[in-house]
Amino acid sequence: MGSLHPAEKPKAIDLSHHLNNLSRSRHPSPLKDILKYMVQPGMISLAGGLPHPSLFPFESLHTRAYAPDSNLAPGETKHGVVDIHIPQTSASTSNIAIALQYGPGTGCSPNLVSFLREFTARVMQPAYADYEILIHSGNTDGWNKIVNLLCEFGDYILVEAHTYPSAQALWAPMGCKGAPIAMDGDGLLVEDLRRVLANWETDHPGVRRPKLLYVVPVGQNPTGSTMTFERKQAVYALCVEYDIIICEDDPYYFLQLPAYAPPASRKQESQQDEQALLASLVPSFLNLDYQGRVIRLETFSKTLGPGNRLGYFVCNPIFAERLLRATEVTTQTPSGWSQAILAELLSAWGQSGYLTWLRNLRDSYAIRRDWMCDLLAERFDLENSPVPTEGVLAFAKGHGSRADRKQLFSFVQPKAGMFLWLKLNLIGNPEYERLRAAAGPNVEAQWNEAFWMQMIEAKVLLTPGSYYTPWEGRDPSPNRRKEEGVTYFRLTFAFESHEEMRLGIDRMARTFELSWNLVA
Amino acid sequence: MGSLHPAEKPKAIDLSHHLNNLSRSRHPSPLKDILKYMVQPGMISLAGGLPHPSLFPFESLHTRAYAPDSNLAPGETKHGVVDIHIPQTSASTSNIAIALQYGPGTGCSPNLVSFLREFTARVMQPAYADYEILIHSGNTDGWNKIVNLLCEFGDYILVEAHTYPSAQALWAPMGCKGAPIAMDGDGLLVEDLRRVLANWETDHPGVRRPKLLYVVPVGQNPTGSTMTFERKQAVYALCVEYDIIICEDDPYYFLQLPAYAPPASRKQESQQDEQALLASLVPSFLNLDYQGRVIRLETFSKTLGPGNRLGYFVCNPIFAERLLRATEVTTQTPSGWSQAILAELLSAWGQSGYLTWLRNLRDSYAIRRDWMCDLLAERFDLENSPVPTEGVLAFAKGHGSRADRKQLFSFVQPKAGMFLWLKLNLIGNPEYERLRAAAGPNVEAQWNEAFWMQMIEAKVLLTPGSYYTPWEGRDPSPNRRKEEGVTYFRLTFAFESHEEMRLGIDRMARTFELSWNLVA
Repeated sequence: MGSLHPAEKPKAIDLSHHLNNLSRSRHPSPLKDILKYMVQPGMISLAGGLPHPSLFPFESLHTRAYAPDSNLAPGETKHGVVDIHIPQTSASTSNIAIALQYGPGTGCSPNLVSFLREFTARVMQPAYADYEILIHSGNTDGWNKIVNLLCEFGDYILVEAHTYPSAQALWAPMGCKGAPIAMDGDGLLVEDLRRVLANWETDHPGVRRPKLLYVVPVGQNPTGSTMTFERKQAVYALCVEYDIIICEDDPYYFLQLPAYAPPASRKQESQQDEQALLASLVPSFLNLDYQGRVIRLETFSKTLGPGNRLGYFVCNPIFAERLLRATEVTTQTPSGWSQAILAELLSAWGQSGYLTWLRNLRDSYAIRRDWMCDLLAERFDLENSPVPTEGVLAFAKGHGSRADRKQLFSFVQPKAGMFLWLKLNLIGNPEYERLRAAAGPNVEAQWNEAFWMQMIEAKVLLTPGSYYTPWEGRDPSPNRRKEEGVTYFRLTFAFESHEEMRLGIDRMARTFELSWNLVA
Repeated sequence: MGSLHPAEKPKAIDLSHHLNNLSRSRHPSPLKDILKYMVQPGMISLAGGLPHPSLFPFESLHTRAYAPDSNLAPGETKHGVVDIHIPQTSASTSNIAIALQYGPGTGCSPNLVSFLREFTARVMQPAYADYEILIHSGNTDGWNKIVNLLCEFGDYILVEAHTYPSAQALWAPMGCKGAPIAMDGDGLLVEDLRRVLANWETDHPGVRRPKLLYVVPVGQNPTGSTMTFERKQAVYALCVEYDIIICEDDPYYFLQLPAYAPPASRKQESQQDEQALLASLVPSFLNLDYQGRVIRLETFSKTLGPGNRLGYFVCNPIFAERLLRATEVTTQTPSGWSQAILAELLSAWGQSGYLTWLRNLRDSYAIRRDWMCDLLAERFDLENSPVPTEGVLAFAKGHGSRADRKQLFSFVQPKAGMFLWLKLNLIGNPEYERLRAAAGPNVEAQWNEAFWMQMIEAKVLLTPGSYYTPWEGRDPSPNRRKEEGVTYFRLTFAFESHEEMRLGIDRMARTFELSWNLVA
């Protein structure tokens, strides 16, 4: 972990050569010059274009929130309330006159940013001194702003072998392409990242080497994999070597779960204290970032609700200033209601209260993850894979002797987040073998589509793994490793009740058995 | 005005050839396919990535708003409250479980969009049938999305001769350039728009003719001018002829003020009824738009508060669909708090209530506009200009005989919005004449900067007109008409109290008198 003495930390190095033409060309609005005169004592300003706050139609806002130590386990009733009052005007707290006014791109609730600054220093412990915090309207728009900060049309972006579709739906229309990096249950494979970078000029003659790595290091969407600290260290070192900027999109950071244990050996987790909670979290890339080459995308979507549309960048001051310029001419500062409500909630809870909330939230996801893994263990015969990062192999329940049974899929028990990723083994599946014998194109895709429709007919909906295939352009690199006899589905354990989940896993298992001709 | 029978209205024509490469290339997220299966009865979905709403930390939200018929005149106390309650779940109103969840780009409060649909049909009366309404996060980001919908890097955009700086701060870094169109107190000069378009190929050989007109037709920022309906008709016809898309950025639409009258002849405006209010509004470009070539940017910033960061596009269905695709990968839907609060406020007020609020808001701006015009009349000798669209000429108060007095500036009494635009006449100003005799470069700019600093020293802050000069690239067109001996300042009457405004105008007048050597 980084030093506790910020004074000893280095400042960010100058990475301004990474800015694209668009972001280099942005100028501050001339209207901002006005601000320094506006605040002079005795000045009469006839310059601004602000509506008078007496014309905002709200007198006050009150929201009843839960206590930070609420039990968030599924089915529990939350007790304890924290009443948050936002008055029309106020000297020290968020207020309507400011929240509903035009505000600087840096935010309308200084309390919010100072809370986040303290939180970041304490929890993330960045390895450099002069990082900045800039609030944004959620990680989706945050990522949009990063791509428009760094990428030129047509650039390649380093992405995980299975990547978040909404992130690439942003850059694919810009003519950008993904350069996929292989991964396992512990995240990106460092040797594959090195291979791609070291061979770039040979494999892509005349094409600019990627300058940006997009990574969801914790509870990755879709694979559910979580990078170990060792992987992060090696990836960071490679990014220093090849001068790569890392976008750490980390919505599931606080959903890092204890290792899965079967019900018999599961201990009732004693409520961790704050130090134990913090020690249990794999450090962020920020904690390794002595140069300022990480842009961390932090969001409240998974912790306080997606509809807040509020999050923040943590990054070096040069990037933060350019992101602020982009914010001023696009979204401006996020919704004043969202800022004021979350500022006051966090202020009422305090740093420790927020960590307590995050711990209880994590515990509730752990229960749900355990439900799903337990249900898979009930419905399939599971066996540890010889390759530990591949997790467990799943066979049809009690079907056939050990020698001739078919392995249907494998999965890694998620150590974070919301997702469980099934890697299907199609070798020996009757329909797959029939398709393969007919030697049609895209045998795996054909099989996958048909199997997905069979599950839908059985009334269970999974997400096809093909949704997460990186876009490599119309003619993907010939180096792309084709995975024969393999296809993927993503399951989430975040939403359905235990009974619905049981029903869903049962329907899924039945569809597997039917497809593999294993129905008793 | 358009027909009241939507069935008789034409559908939008196909304007898809206006889409730029970026917006053409956008694909819907594959995750959206999932939605149609998710809603099938009996489906168990293990597909989504939504946090469970029991994990949102809010039990309820309550806001105390004002009654729609509140007296909004400066200094009045608002009476009457409307209590808005947003529960955790609810069948028919906005609720926290939906507002704080991920939502479709089309919004999380269907009540809001249906309210806006009815409002648009009733108040704007678009001339075509199949227009769409798509909510956005405020007009600044709305404009960002329009430029990224239609413009390629390097395109020219038709803009007003004095244009809103934040709008051009978006496109200038994209290598785009403004093609300025002359204007007067009644808005864009149609003959100048025709001149620019008709001569385009001659004046800009090899450069693509502009396809997009950006216009603030009501209470224009900075000039305060308001386009007459006749101008709008002629501009629209030209845009049909030259196949131009019109972006109608109209934040001040409901701040259309009665004509200014001096205090002696001012009648106390009797409270207008709804029909009279609607009849008093110059129709929107939408009302002329039988082809669907207008994208209207509507915002709540000036009516219910900028910090809501909420507004909406009204446009043809092809553009709306592409704007929705862009929304999905950038901002997503606006803040759920903003949507829920405004949905319930508008629903509580009703259509007539909202119009009453807008009328009273308008009346409050009329009082402020009258303050400023009265104060100018008290502090300067005013006389109607021989050119009616130039408004009034201002001379130093009681100084010299009619024959030899100096005209200091002219201005148009604003018929809408927040701004009053001073056109200074520098001919005969001692310092200006000295600079001109020295034949330095940018004589007007030099004079302007010095005069601005003199006002700041006198503790009155205006906005220099140069902030609003369209960006025409590093080498502006030689056709640009240089205005010799002319410079501009923008005043706002929206914010300061009457006493502060009096002090400000007095300080400004003293600075004029000093600069023109007219101090008694």
